[in-house]
Amino acid sequence: MTRDEARARDAADPLRHHRDLFVLPEGVIYLDGNSLGPLPRATAPALADMAERQWGDRLIRSWNEGWIDAPQRIGGKIAQLIGAHPDEVIVADSTSVNLFKLLVAALRHDPARHTIVSETGNFPTDLHIAEGAVGCVPAARLNAVARGDLATAIDDETALTMLTHVHYKTGERFDMAAWTTRAHEAGALALWDLSHSVGAIAVDLNAAGADFAVGCGYKYLNGGPGAPAFLFVARRLQERLASPLSGWMGHAAPFAFADAYAPAPGMARWLAGTPPMLALAGLEAGVDLWLDVDRAQVAAKSAALFDQFAAIGAQLGLACVSPADPAQRGSHIAFRHPQAYALCQALIARGVIGDFRDPDILRFGLTPLYIGYEDIWRAGEVLGEILASGAHADPAFSKRHAVT
Amino acid sequence: MTRDEARARDAADPLRHHRDLFVLPEGVIYLDGNSLGPLPRATAPALADMAERQWGDRLIRSWNEGWIDAPQRIGGKIAQLIGAHPDEVIVADSTSVNLFKLLVAALRHDPARHTIVSETGNFPTDLHIAEGAVGCVPAARLNAVARGDLATAIDDETALTMLTHVHYKTGERFDMAAWTTRAHEAGALALWDLSHSVGAIAVDLNAAGADFAVGCGYKYLNGGPGAPAFLFVARRLQERLASPLSGWMGHAAPFAFADAYAPAPGMARWLAGTPPMLALAGLEAGVDLWLDVDRAQVAAKSAALFDQFAAIGAQLGLACVSPADPAQRGSHIAFRHPQAYALCQALIARGVIGDFRDPDILRFGLTPLYIGYEDIWRAGEVLGEILASGAHADPAFSKRHAVT
Repeated sequence: MTRDEARARDAADPLRHHRDLFVLPEGVIYLDGNSLGPLPRATAPALADMAERQWGDRLIRSWNEGWIDAPQRIGGKIAQLIGAHPDEVIVADSTSVNLFKLLVAALRHDPARHTIVSETGNFPTDLHIAEGAVGCVPAARLNAVARGDLATAIDDETALTMLTHVHYKTGERFDMAAWTTRAHEAGALALWDLSHSVGAIAVDLNAAGADFAVGCGYKYLNGGPGAPAFLFVARRLQERLASPLSGWMGHAAPFAFADAYAPAPGMARWLAGTPPMLALAGLEAGVDLWLDVDRAQVAAKSAALFDQFAAIGAQLGLACVSPADPAQRGSHIAFRHPQAYALCQALIARGVIGDFRDPDILRFGLTPLYIGYEDIWRAGEVLGEILASGAHADPAFSKRHAVT
Repeated sequence: MTRDEARARDAADPLRHHRDLFVLPEGVIYLDGNSLGPLPRATAPALADMAERQWGDRLIRSWNEGWIDAPQRIGGKIAQLIGAHPDEVIVADSTSVNLFKLLVAALRHDPARHTIVSETGNFPTDLHIAEGAVGCVPAARLNAVARGDLATAIDDETALTMLTHVHYKTGERFDMAAWTTRAHEAGALALWDLSHSVGAIAVDLNAAGADFAVGCGYKYLNGGPGAPAFLFVARRLQERLASPLSGWMGHAAPFAFADAYAPAPGMARWLAGTPPMLALAGLEAGVDLWLDVDRAQVAAKSAALFDQFAAIGAQLGLACVSPADPAQRGSHIAFRHPQAYALCQALIARGVIGDFRDPDILRFGLTPLYIGYEDIWRAGEVLGEILASGAHADPAFSKRHAVT
């Protein structure tokens, strides 16, 4: 695709006006919205309102003026993006903490089943938290196997499967309905990590029959760095499980101040501490942007951006590790390269922000709301220039940062 | 104290200029800083900088420009307020979630000891979370007894004591050093909840020999509604305990993306998910205000405000349930009254914001940084007028809100 062709596609793009809803710094092509979504224009005013009016002026009265229900309200909005009922999703804590709650609860659900089945190479916090969760339930264990061995690993010992819908490195996507069915056929429950799916691709938890899900607020939802996360529990299971993190905000009557814990009905039982209102204001501003987006247009543009970048990669001789079929991937593209880290740093130095994943993956987020075809064209130009000139061989680009 | 006397004391108050560091709404006397600290003037600009410059402009580059170390940096500042070394405190999650981590870890520390000893009527989330924690460790149990029975409840079965330094209702304070010694003499560890202590009274964890502590960011630290919380682990214990919430940010090498969890050295192991930067910006702005405050002045003024309010209560025939001796209490005053809820609502309707705690406690925060003697005088006037007129008998004031 030439630059003129890219411009023409941008001009005809029905999502083009969404770009104006974001702050995108001058001179930067931001291809890392899969790691940290950029700042929506609505967010700074929303934070100012939260701080100055809601907190500063209304003080504790705000708890009765929209704060105490915020986890349910924002959860209900996210539900629209993932094929869930509004009363099946709540916002709380981090993805890691939410995973822990659900894993421990699910392991206790059927005392005859002891195993979490997951995938080696899953996003680390999923496996790490699963290690912590099995340590909290007698006889529980984690069985992480290669993707090709998953089907046989799911058996009558399996309490639940814990799979990440879209792989954080390669972008590979599980067939959610098929793998949920596979878990259910074995008598197990199915938990999905939607961190690289929500806001990236179509998700329909209830159509797939999923039991549990967690997901991240700061990637494609653009909720801000370290934004609160969400969790989903299917209605049929809600009254049968309780959180091991039995904090007061998950109590049936938190302001009765009773000594004994009693879980709240519905999703509120998955709350632990006091809702983090500053962070929730950021998340809600990000989520609100999604509510009137045509998600079929997002999917079509994501596929087109991918094809454009894949063609650039092929031309430059880069090994693409993401599936070609849009139905089998998320909304990022990943290449394998022995100097991936240095290449990533050289790109950032020239204003093209993607990211690196150990040991050799160069990853670019394709986020249709604010990235256009000319952006991809330009990123390809810069990448080609770096590769041709060997600029990434500069030792400065090999120096590792704390966060890579 | 007359109004003129109160004004004279305000004029002579060495802390008076700190009041200007807060946004205090016109017509409001805010006596609930023990529940939600008010907005510091520095906070809205700090949030705007976090959103617009750090997130909006620098994007993921900010992780290497001050974000990734924020939990340790802010923890190190809080350490100055609680008698801890900077490397003994980290900011993470909520008080509830931090309590869970420490309780499970402490219960696993000595397999011969199984019991958490705590107090009935402790802040509910402490007891609720302890219920959840003992469910995660074989043979563990929670033994909550009345304060008078604590000394005998601590025995050779006790893994740790879990006490709240200053009681959320009455303001009663435990002698931290004495109770820590009592726990140690029995071979147990001692955990302190500092939620109503930090920023309220002098705390010296290391002088007391404390093992663990947790505390709240949104009360006297003025970190914002639902601000992140902190936890403390004494140096001597840090490498001997690990978090059950073994998330990736607590990993020794989070960006190596290994399947197996390995705890980070020092306090970083108590992190789970990605640091919540918007919320941390609010917390840091609040904590920074404390760093150059003369805490002896704070203690003296807190005692004086208490005496002033206690005299008003005595004059109005209210039963004060907070100890008279400043060494035995925190920085709030509580009265028992059969119509406490209606009284609280009637006060709020007239701009005096205190709070109610079920079933019959009327509670007022005495926060020397921004409350003065004339404020207390005026609050006393309004309280007296309501009691004399019976205005609180208006049925509108009995209607319960979601958050009381």
